[in-house]
Amino acid sequence: MFLHKQALQYNATPEKPDAVYARKLQEVIGGQYGEITVAMQYSFQAWNAHIPGKYRDLLFSTAAEEFGHVEMLATMVAQLLEKAPQGITDDAVQDDPTVAAVVGGMDVQDAILAGAGARPVDSNGNPWNAGYVTASGNLLADFTSNINAEMQGRIAVARLYHQTDDPGVRDLLSFLLARDTHHQNQWLAAARELQETGMEQLPVPSNFPVKKEHREFSYQAINFSDGKSMAEGPWASGPSPDGLGEFSYVDTPPQGVPMPPPTHPDSRFYGTTEVPNIVEKTAGAVQDKLKKE
Amino acid sequence: MFLHKQALQYNATPEKPDAVYARKLQEVIGGQYGEITVAMQYSFQAWNAHIPGKYRDLLFSTAAEEFGHVEMLATMVAQLLEKAPQGITDDAVQDDPTVAAVVGGMDVQDAILAGAGARPVDSNGNPWNAGYVTASGNLLADFTSNINAEMQGRIAVARLYHQTDDPGVRDLLSFLLARDTHHQNQWLAAARELQETGMEQLPVPSNFPVKKEHREFSYQAINFSDGKSMAEGPWASGPSPDGLGEFSYVDTPPQGVPMPPPTHPDSRFYGTTEVPNIVEKTAGAVQDKLKKE
Amino acid sequence: MFLHKQALQYNATPEKPDAVYARKLQEVIGGQYGEITVAMQYSFQAWNAHIPGKYRDLLFSTAAEEFGHVEMLATMVAQLLEKAPQGITDDAVQDDPTVAAVVGGMDVQDAILAGAGARPVDSNGNPWNAGYVTASGNLLADFTSNINAEMQGRIAVARLYHQTDDPGVRDLLSFLLARDTHHQNQWLAAARELQETGMEQLPVPSNFPVKKEHREFSYQAINFSDGKSMAEGPWASGPSPDGLGEFSYVDTPPQGVPMPPPTHPDSRFYGTTEVPNIVEKTAGAVQDKLKKE
Amino acid sequence: MFLHKQALQYNATPEKPDAVYARKLQEVIGGQYGEITVAMQYSFQAWNAHIPGKYRDLLFSTAAEEFGHVEMLATMVAQLLEKAPQGITDDAVQDDPTVAAVVGGMDVQDAILAGAGARPVDSNGNPWNAGYVTASGNLLADFTSNINAEMQGRIAVARLYHQTDDPGVRDLLSFLLARDTHHQNQWLAAARELQETGMEQLPVPSNFPVKKEHREFSYQAINFSDGKSMAEGPWASGPSPDGLGEFSYVDTPPQGVPMPPPTHPDSRFYGTTEVPNIVEKTAGAVQDKLKKE
Amino acid sequence: MFLHKQALQYNATPEKPDAVYARKLQEVIGGQYGEITVAMQYSFQAWNAHIPGKYRDLLFSTAAEEFGHVEMLATMVAQLLEKAPQGITDDAVQDDPTVAAVVGGMDVQDAILAGAGARPVDSNGNPWNAGYVTASGNLLADFTSNINAEMQGRIAVARLYHQTDDPGVRDLLSFLLARDTHHQNQWLAAARELQETGMEQLPVPSNFPVKKEHREFSYQAINFSDGKSMAEGPWASGPSPDGLGEFSYVDTPPQGVPMPPPTHPDSRFYGTTEVPNIVEKTAGAVQDKLKKE
Amino acid sequence: MFLHKQALQYNATPEKPDAVYARKLQEVIGGQYGEITVAMQYSFQAWNAHIPGKYRDLLFSTAAEEFGHVEMLATMVAQLLEKAPQGITDDAVQDDPTVAAVVGGMDVQDAILAGAGARPVDSNGNPWNAGYVTASGNLLADFTSNINAEMQGRIAVARLYHQTDDPGVRDLLSFLLARDTHHQNQWLAAARELQETGMEQLPVPSNFPVKKEHREFSYQAINFSDGKSMAEGPWASGPSPDGLGEFSYVDTPPQGVPMPPPTHPDSRFYGTTEVPNIVEKTAGAVQDKLKKE
Repeated sequence: MFLHKQALQYNATPEKPDAVYARKLQEVIGGQYGEITVAMQYSFQAWNAHIPGKYRDLLFSTAAEEFGHVEMLATMVAQLLEKAPQGITDDAVQDDPTVAAVVGGMDVQDAILAGAGARPVDSNGNPWNAGYVTASGNLLADFTSNINAEMQGRIAVARLYHQTDDPGVRDLLSFLLARDTHHQNQWLAAARELQETGMEQLPVPSNFPVKKEHREFSYQAINFSDGKSMAEGPWASGPSPDGLGEFSYVDTPPQGVPMPPPTHPDSRFYGTTEVPNIVEKTAGAVQDKLKKE
Repeated sequence: MFLHKQALQYNATPEKPDAVYARKLQEVIGGQYGEITVAMQYSFQAWNAHIPGKYRDLLFSTAAEEFGHVEMLATMVAQLLEKAPQGITDDAVQDDPTVAAVVGGMDVQDAILAGAGARPVDSNGNPWNAGYVTASGNLLADFTSNINAEMQGRIAVARLYHQTDDPGVRDLLSFLLARDTHHQNQWLAAARELQETGMEQLPVPSNFPVKKEHREFSYQAINFSDGKSMAEGPWASGPSPDGLGEFSYVDTPPQGVPMPPPTHPDSRFYGTTEVPNIVEKTAGAVQDKLKKE
Repeated sequence: MFLHKQALQYNATPEKPDAVYARKLQEVIGGQYGEITVAMQYSFQAWNAHIPGKYRDLLFSTAAEEFGHVEMLATMVAQLLEKAPQGITDDAVQDDPTVAAVVGGMDVQDAILAGAGARPVDSNGNPWNAGYVTASGNLLADFTSNINAEMQGRIAVARLYHQTDDPGVRDLLSFLLARDTHHQNQWLAAARELQETGMEQLPVPSNFPVKKEHREFSYQAINFSDGKSMAEGPWASGPSPDGLGEFSYVDTPPQGVPMPPPTHPDSRFYGTTEVPNIVEKTAGAVQDKLKKE
Repeated sequence: MFLHKQALQYNATPEKPDAVYARKLQEVIGGQYGEITVAMQYSFQAWNAHIPGKYRDLLFSTAAEEFGHVEMLATMVAQLLEKAPQGITDDAVQDDPTVAAVVGGMDVQDAILAGAGARPVDSNGNPWNAGYVTASGNLLADFTSNINAEMQGRIAVARLYHQTDDPGVRDLLSFLLARDTHHQNQWLAAARELQETGMEQLPVPSNFPVKKEHREFSYQAINFSDGKSMAEGPWASGPSPDGLGEFSYVDTPPQGVPMPPPTHPDSRFYGTTEVPNIVEKTAGAVQDKLKKE
Repeated sequence: MFLHKQALQYNATPEKPDAVYARKLQEVIGGQYGEITVAMQYSFQAWNAHIPGKYRDLLFSTAAEEFGHVEMLATMVAQLLEKAPQGITDDAVQDDPTVAAVVGGMDVQDAILAGAGARPVDSNGNPWNAGYVTASGNLLADFTSNINAEMQGRIAVARLYHQTDDPGVRDLLSFLLARDTHHQNQWLAAARELQETGMEQLPVPSNFPVKKEHREFSYQAINFSDGKSMAEGPWASGPSPDGLGEFSYVDTPPQGVPMPPPTHPDSRFYGTTEVPNIVEKTAGAVQDKLKKE
Repeated sequence: MFLHKQALQYNATPEKPDAVYARKLQEVIGGQYGEITVAMQYSFQAWNAHIPGKYRDLLFSTAAEEFGHVEMLATMVAQLLEKAPQGITDDAVQDDPTVAAVVGGMDVQDAILAGAGARPVDSNGNPWNAGYVTASGNLLADFTSNINAEMQGRIAVARLYHQTDDPGVRDLLSFLLARDTHHQNQWLAAARELQETGMEQLPVPSNFPVKKEHREFSYQAINFSDGKSMAEGPWASGPSPDGLGEFSYVDTPPQGVPMPPPTHPDSRFYGTTEVPNIVEKTAGAVQDKLKKE
């Protein structure tokens, strides 16, 4: 159950409107690693969790927090759009090329569709979609997905920080950066504990009987490119991070195996084959016959 | 530059066709964490890399290897589809309910569109899309994304392993599981080295001046749900994995700040406001006037 | 700010698992008119609202309620999937054609990706996307969108009600149907009040100066098909619902106006024109010359 | 059967080209509530209708009219693009910052792909998709969907009206606004008649036996946020619009019911559980053994 | 302008319902090469045409015809769905495994969303999207796109022909196959004429001054794989179809050119570089300092 | 199997950065007819081919070549973005309106997500998706699809050629134009050979027994629009390109056949019908009863 409270977690008021920057902020609302993604991802991970207790508590908590981040950003975007120009025919546009650039650079759907409001889309106007969400039921994999999401999200916010000098916007971004820092650390701590307690280990999924995989290929660094320094990395020699193997390096891919012969499905699929399919009569024969008639 | 060689990295021949299983294998071809995703992700990470050398070599190599995985799976899918039934009117269907189930459970587009061949889609027929790809230019973030992708991918293959008993299919999956094991370990080793050498550190991006984030919120585990055990995790007390802070726990979110007043953009956006917009004449007045006329 | 509480609004436990029905329930989680849509739609309408007070309060409240509906349905789906078969090679499948049908009819991604859990997708596995969301800032339009969403949503749930006889599932659906009934009524009441108070009126947007539209076409029912009974409806004669006009009926579309001449953009766009473009030399001349050389 | 006539319903010629505005008009061609949406929506509603006669006649007629609207807008867009600049290296661009802004603000695909022509996309370049279409077979729900579509569409056109001062463009928009006015009124009239004749009533679907829904929740306004004025609305007390109930107001959500215990699906899904799954041997044991070997 | 007529171009009535086949027919309604695609493609090609006259007339005509094909198929699908079972709990399902297979194999959204009606989606439930449409303004390219569309479309219909034995369905498919035959021939004839009259020639676009392309690479068959028989094709020697060159064969790709050095964008993008970025202070220094404090 | 080589097929270095042009080049990386499309299309055509030998060799070779084209373009894009401005607050922006236009016209995700790098998206930021790919197993259809793809692709590159004057960019485009010329010719030569040898003929698929199509409609040019010059084309009289028929022209579509009566599916789908559905009691009766209670 979710309850809403009419307050924001932190200040979300710009000093002045900036419609181009509003478009950029849409990235952290509705982009691949925006706040909608993490809110939905943590929610579904919680709903798909197979154990109650601290991990699920953490997922529920962080999911709710992230929905609140969407809210702060949407509130900010609406304010950044408050003075959005109507378009290229505004007087201001004709007088001031910077305004003209704003007309070109803002998200026109924020104006036409939302009436100068936020939308659940990214900075190029792509609607958020659930293909961004990961919730496998395996907590070590999913927490790793979360670490990645918080890293990518913090990178985006850090980049955005330098693309404005509005103190109100930067104040909110400083808050979000701090929470991203926390969430990176949080999922790292959780993933580490899972491994220390043996609940999940490397390689994920750790309960799959490794004897069923072809172990001779499990620690081989095979070079499919021609870069000479691939051999120098810690993935090419020494113990593997899962503690189960020793890396080796193969400079050139092995010969491989011959491709199996191409398939010959039912001729009624009309694929091209060496000997033309014959269903009743070949088309060629039909052609000859039809020509004669 | 990519060169193609007409050989497979490993055997990819089923003992017998199985059109329903062909559909399931589409997941690891064209799904969120399928082989197309990793092939494209590692390629773009290489092209966006800012340094030559071992990391980029590794990315190029693994990208090329993964394109070869797509090839083995597509080859396998075509063979699994070789005896795909035409449909519900096949004689076999009417005699054997299992065949009827196959007609229901196979990907009908594999038949109608590909003529009993593989397609760049997932197991529900969603076309692969590039929204799955991550390539930020920050290697620690991107290698973490790769660790996640290899974990999620190996989970999917492990699950699929139990959904067939065809020895040829299982032989290929055993090979793919081994390579996923290697790639998990490989990216873990690379991410670890990045941190050990100080090229990138936690929190990502580590070069963002942390003084610009609101540090008072950087290590606070704030509970936005009511789970009582959230306080028990290693994210709620003790040192943070980034080595820069000490976690604390906040049982109830702080009061927050008041929402800023709603925005009042240009009345020509026709949003609903407390005092109705007036453009030339209010619609009400227009209505009155028109009624009179 | 959103707060989560570890309780469900209502019971969400099936009597027994049913993996095919789990797939069907995905429709009301992640479909066009599923609970994610309304939760996100009401949230963005609240964030884009230009007035505080009862309408925004209602939007925030209902948004939070709908996120809780997603939760109940996701919880239900996970339970329906609890005994999901591995696949066509399960012993049970070979013995029981009904199980074979389940293998064909269930969402295979619920198994392969979510490990027998819910996903933010519809019943055909299409990821939810924000193209379903409407939040224009005009409350009469948006409340009408909400009435529609609650109608379409209640139709889907009513249909689903008949597609199961599990008492636990039906119990939850009976609850959801009741809430849909409430929400239909709620948005109807709100839309009615907006009009009664004159905050917004018909036609939406009511503040656009109607004199700027070509009023001679505003109440004409023009028949672009050849159905004879179109003239019989209340849209073809009598007063219009907006109270501003009188409907008339036009049996055959007027002649219309001639199409403007086709455009001739810059020849460097290489469109086909009557007189072939000439850039430097025509390709034909180039061809002649190249042939001679 | 559709027949085409080489004439436009109304004038569609701009006074002068404007490539940025062309991009904006794409919204009403290929956006969520653009003309393609309504043309397709009314077509599928007609094809899914269960009764011949005036409602279906109306759907067929309006569908054909809307395809003609797509045509007028596409014709307009091509003309607005007629002088589209090649790009940032045009001489005009370097001399005139306004042209530079046009280069930034126009839809580059209109140039690169369509050769200065219209495309079935929205103003951010998102391809139109059929996820926008509603056709449930229930006419009251679908007519309500149509009312909404005509409202949202008219809002977009009204906003666009102010974003140009080209008299030719405004002339076409004035025509479209009038037709949107008619269509809003038309669907309102039709929806009203459905209810008056009892063919469909509230709540939709009205034939679902309401006794099967949990009626105690059907008229309760439960506040899931903390807005104090939610109680003041006509949805919180008084008779419900469906005429079947009396609204009541609940200030705080009830306690709810405990979440059911998490699921424990087959261990071969490799979800994380309290006691690690054991398939053959635990990974831990495998690890120990492998280390010894 | 489009006009609708309440008649079908041809019979579209099945002998008996078949819900699984209804799903398959969705492919030719809303798939990549379904009738919606060609109807929209020909429409936009007409609207983007730069010359009036016979080619545009042909486009308008065929577009209108194809919208009528959508109509016949939608009408057929609704009838095929007329006896669609409710679901797995229908009595018939429990008695008859074939019915159970139908429950698994039908499009569940056709039932839940459309109430046993057609939808603008493909046979896997993917909504039709405008990314399938091609309309470049260059008629030779676009007619070639049309030839392809009619070929792919006819293949799909031919395959579907064998997946039913319903005489009513086959009757309609026989009509559609004939029209596809006509349309293939029609676009071939039109493309041929364009070339014969010199309006457009090979290579497309033929007006681009070929001297601006690096002609030494224009007729080289370079083998990037290791297939030995690539040299045997008519693309490896002899005159080229455009009449402008002579093919040659290169067995192994040339060495190529060195990759340019990786880029070093602004350090505020936080990409990983050889020497860690320094913004104010390195994170490492910050870490040291923060640890001391 | 794919092998990567750290060299480019051709030079790919701009003289100077141009962030707006980088966005435009994205079209030929990740657009409908970009290099990813052809690389993937040729790969899947090879994997779905039913015969080994020269056609499959050609497909494998060209697929690998096209992946190398993606690489050259991604490398170019990264360099074009090397001096991408941070945003509207850069000093340069405020001094120079051209820079302001760049801020408006560049792809903001190239900056925020990729850190000034390339992405697998088109010039409007739409992620590449596999819905663009065609691989039917019928080689004549698929080679025709390839001819089209190379035509559309060459048109886009030709248009882009004129939108820059950077000699480095133009040098690469001149190379790509030449390869597109080759590939157009190559697929034309291959398609021609298929027909000459009788492996595949017109109409595609040529093995479908043409007697099963309604031959009376196979060569009829029926005019569904009112263009007078449609009769003048080579599709309206004379022999058809497939050599099997003679075109005829029909000026007005025939009357057609009556629409079948609308369907009446199970009342539990709650579609609107003439006589309202009755499930247990009609809603009206329920309403009356409830009102009395």
